Parts: sequence; structure tokens; C-alpha cells
Amino acid sequence: MAGAGKKILALSGGVGGAKLALGLAQELPAGALAVLVNTADDFRHHGLHISPDIDTLLYTLSGRSNRAQGWGIEGETWQVREALAALGGDTWFQLGDGDLATHLLRTGLLAEGQALSAVTARLAQAMGIQSAIYPMAEEPVSTLVHTDEGELPFQHYFVRRRCEPAVSGFSFRGLDAARVPAPLQALLASGEVAAVVICPSNPFVSIDPILGVPGLWQQLAALAVPVVAVSPIIGGRAVKGPAAKMMAELGLPVDAAAVVQHYRQRYPGLVSHVVLDNEDAALADALGQSGNEEIAVHNTLMKTLDDKRQLARDVLTKVLKNVLPEARR
Amino acid sequence: MAGAGKKILALSGGVGGAKLALGLAQELPAGALAVLVNTADDFRHHGLHISPDIDTLLYTLSGRSNRAQGWGIEGETWQVREALAALGGDTWFQLGDGDLATHLLRTGLLAEGQALSAVTARLAQAMGIQSAIYPMAEEPVSTLVHTDEGELPFQHYFVRRRCEPAVSGFSFRGLDAARVPAPLQALLASGEVAAVVICPSNPFVSIDPILGVPGLWQQLAALAVPVVAVSPIIGGRAVKGPAAKMMAELGLPVDAAAVVQHYRQRYPGLVSHVVLDNEDAALADALGQSGNEEIAVHNTLMKTLDDKRQLARDVLTKVLKNVLPEARR
Repeated sequence: MAGAGKKILALSGGVGGAKLALGLAQELPAGALAVLVNTADDFRHHGLHISPDIDTLLYTLSGRSNRAQGWGIEGETWQVREALAALGGDTWFQLGDGDLATHLLRTGLLAEGQALSAVTARLAQAMGIQSAIYPMAEEPVSTLVHTDEGELPFQHYFVRRRCEPAVSGFSFRGLDAARVPAPLQALLASGEVAAVVICPSNPFVSIDPILGVPGLWQQLAALAVPVVAVSPIIGGRAVKGPAAKMMAELGLPVDAAAVVQHYRQRYPGLVSHVVLDNEDAALADALGQSGNEEIAVHNTLMKTLDDKRQLARDVLTKVLKNVLPEARR
Repeated sequence: MAGAGKKILALSGGVGGAKLALGLAQELPAGALAVLVNTADDFRHHGLHISPDIDTLLYTLSGRSNRAQGWGIEGETWQVREALAALGGDTWFQLGDGDLATHLLRTGLLAEGQALSAVTARLAQAMGIQSAIYPMAEEPVSTLVHTDEGELPFQHYFVRRRCEPAVSGFSFRGLDAARVPAPLQALLASGEVAAVVICPSNPFVSIDPILGVPGLWQQLAALAVPVVAVSPIIGGRAVKGPAAKMMAELGLPVDAAAVVQHYRQRYPGLVSHVVLDNEDAALADALGQSGNEEIAVHNTLMKTLDDKRQLARDVLTKVLKNVLPEARR
């Protein structure tokens, strides 16, 4: 155990992962959280580079997110969308005016030749965020969802088709050529990472692309620090998003144990700790006997900010047993 | 004279040219005006493809332009600009929300592989414009203004530096490889063009790039139809924009006669008719004696819609002597 480590590295997709990341950011000292974010559902729309999961982290950690809606910015306005609709333009991906400013700044800086990690750092700084936010790769990676309607780019499947087509698998175009961004590489080499937290994000389209960046999961395993996986499935349901529906369509049991099995098979030896929801306490014994992870049971349903902070505290103090001794405020 | 011709082809840059284009559009039967527009000051900003002169034509001919301001859209909102400023993004080129919708639609369709002429036609149709609007080329062309501060991209010179640097010349990157768009080529080959009107736009940075598309001016001359040039200089001043300042810096006399000389030297034999402002009537005799153009004198200062329509009527009926016999409403 790297007790000398000073940072928690969280792996996150969009909304579900961002909730725990927010809890961790508020429970940890300033600067002690780094979040590694899925970019395989990045896409171009109206010529703009849109990074939905990074944006969700930016808006959530800066306190700007629209919590009731589950995406976008609180108090958003829609002037451009209205004008675009009046011109007959595509409006299936809802571009709010404030959100557009993020996309415009990102797209412009990328066009100037800046790396996505540098652009993301600049956006985080502009929004007053003290945690580091890293894209999983500088290079573009694109999730294709294999469905009964053919291979759909992720946002088409997710937003335009509302996750309705039945899923048979996934591929990640560009992933083989992706490399860990330099600032993340520096963090991994620094000896400062005390633990890794796999947030309760979709295992197939959020966590798998991150851990699929060539060499990354082996590098995380080689850190020899605790790796905590928090299940996104509670009582056979996904709190948000299509994870449960995908599991059923893929022929998997729809429960937290199947998520753990998925990680065991793909990344053998990586996960050292599992957090199940209280509702799934009955799964803990069998899971513990079939593998080497320490299984913990906590409330993982994060409805309020208190829920998020409580789960973060449980992970930091009970699961990780204060690997960051100075962490608690 | 092509009495059988049914269309007027106007060459235009931004605001000054668009005024006469609007007058022509309102005086001619629906569909009888085609406007060929400068795209050499197109540029990319925040990743968007911005075509300032095309947009000025779109907004002017659709009645959406902000006349008091001289650019942009009437009743524009600025939500995105505010959000962009809050993120520390560049806001020197003012992107209104309605204007942004135009840029987003254009950029997206270009990214899908559509030609700029097709995208422009779609925008014109979406805005209810009955005149044809053609970009001078599908290919990107970039005006570089040679100044005492170095070579500046046009929008940097024009907007960011407010035309302050002294000008020594111009170059048009990409112009040699530009080609006349197919729909304009079809119009030129159709025998339908009854006359060409060079609107009172900046000769150096609006008209020269258009006529500099390889082969174009010779093709216009070969139509053997009247080509009317309306001077943008009135009494030694430009109505709007840097034309007069540029002429002084280039060592030219700042008057309408020098504009005509410029066209004579660059495009020998192209211009058949010249329209001077009433204020410049004294220049008419000498100009008429030094060249072969017919020189006409009219009010060319277009402050009101009536002024625009009156100048259009003067050009159509007095200068062109009703080459479009069915043209008057």
C-alpha cells in the first residue's frame, strides 16, 4: 500500500461517475482528486468537438450542472438552438448557449493544435475546479454500439435513438492507437496515486474504453495500490443510463456480481475492493468466495449531495481505511 | 446586348454591396437576381467556418440585418458570447446567438462534405431569399493584408485591428487554385445573364478576389453583356469601410476615377458602364475621355431602402436601359 501517496485517481464516465467524483472532491483536500474521464463518446456536431463526459465532470465539479435534468447547465438558455431550428438545422443533440461556449472554446483551442488534456485543464481552471480532469486519451476514440439496427455511433444510439436498439456488442474505433495523456502519465509515474476508484459508471461504454487505452489497466495494476470498483447496478437496475438494459441484451445476469465478473475477466487482478449497494448485501458472500476482492456494502444510491459525500467518506475511510491520512477535512 | 437574358449578376462584398443587391432584389422580378459574393475574408474561429460577406448578403436580403449597427442580425442575443467571455475565450469577433446558428449549420454541412455553394443555397432558402447567392469559389481563399505590422489575415486587420495598420498591398492565399462554383458556371453558360453589376464594394479586398478567381473576369467579359461598375468612393470618401484609407496608403488618388482606373488596368475591357455619385459629376467628362465606358451620374449614397431601390432603378432603367424588359414591377 502506497501510504505515501497523496492522490485518489477516479475513473469516470458521465452522470453516475460524476456524482461520486463530486463527493470525493468535497471530502478530499483541494487538489487530491484526479479524474480520468471517458472520451470514447466524444463526437463532432455542427463542426464542434463535443466531449459529453468531460463536460459532465466540468459542470458537476464546478457546481454548474443541472441536477434535475441530469445533463447540461443550470439556468441554461437556448437562443442558438431556437435559431438553428428556425434554419432547419439538426437539433437532436441539445446545445445550450452556455454549453456551446465550452464546445467553441475547446474546438478552437484544438484547432490551434493544443492537446485535449491541455484544453480540458484550461476549461477546468476557467470554471474554478481544483481537481485534475484528464481525458483518457488525446487521440479521438469513437464508441460504436453494435445493435439490431446496425453499428451506431454512441451519441446516435444514446441520444437520438434513446438507447432503444438492442445491443450485441461494442467497438472502440481508434482505441488501439490511443495513448495515455502525458500529464496522466506523469501522475502515474509520480508515486502520488494512493488509490484508484472505478466510479459507478457504465462498465461497457464508460469504463471499458478508459481501461482499454493500450497499457493503461496493466499500468494501474502495477501501481500496487487499492483499486475500488463501485457497482453501477443496484438491485438489478441501473440508477441512470442503459447499463442494465445492455447487460440483459448481452445475455448477462443483470446484477452487481456480473459487473464484478466482467472486470475480473477483462482486467484480471486489477480490482482489489468492491463496493456493493446495501440492497445487494446478499451478493457479497458468494462474490467474496469466488474472487480475491474485499467486498464492502454501503449506500451507493446518490440522490443528494450528502449521499455523494457519504459514499465518498465510506470509500475513503472504510474501504480504503484512510490511505490518505490527511484526507479528511 | 443580350436582350434575351433574364438575370442580373451582381458582384458584392459586404455591407455596401449588399445595399445595392437589396435594391436590385426588390426592383427585379423574383429570381432575377444572382449575387456573386466575396469569400476571401472567410475564416475559421472557434472551429467554425465564418463567411462574413455571405452572411451580410443573407441577413440583408432576408430583411434580418441590423441596419443601425451595420453588421449582424436585428434583435440579436449574446448568451454564448457572455458564456465564452466568462471562460476567458476570445471574443474579439462578436458571435451573436442567431449568427452562431448560421455558422454552426454551415460548418456542420461543410464537414459532411457539402460544397459551400450548396450550403449557401440551403441557408438562403431557409431564410426565404428568392435571389441566388453564390460564393465566389468552393475552395477556401484567404485575404492577407500587407501592412506596416506585417501580413494580417483580413478579419484580424478589419475587426481586431480596426483597419488601423497602414496598407501596402494584398495577397489572396488559395486564389490560384479556386474555381468558379458549378451553379455559377451553369448560370454563365445559360445565356440568361443580361448584365453584370459590380456593386459599390471595396475594389481591393471584395471585388478583386472575386474577379481574381482564375478565368472568371475573362468569362464575364466574354458574355458580351453590359458590365456596370458603381463606385464605392463618393467625393473622396468611402461610405463605409477602409477603401479610401487603403487608396491613400497605396499612393492612389482617393476618388472614384482611381477606382475606375484600377478596374481598367486589372480587367481591361471588362467594365462597359460606370456609375458615379452626383457629388462626383465633375469627374465624368475626364473619365469618359480617358476610356470607353459610358459614364452615368446618379445618387449612390444609400441611406434608406428608398435610396437603394432608386439606385437599383437608375442602374436597371437608365444605365442598362431595361435590358430586362419585363423587369420592372
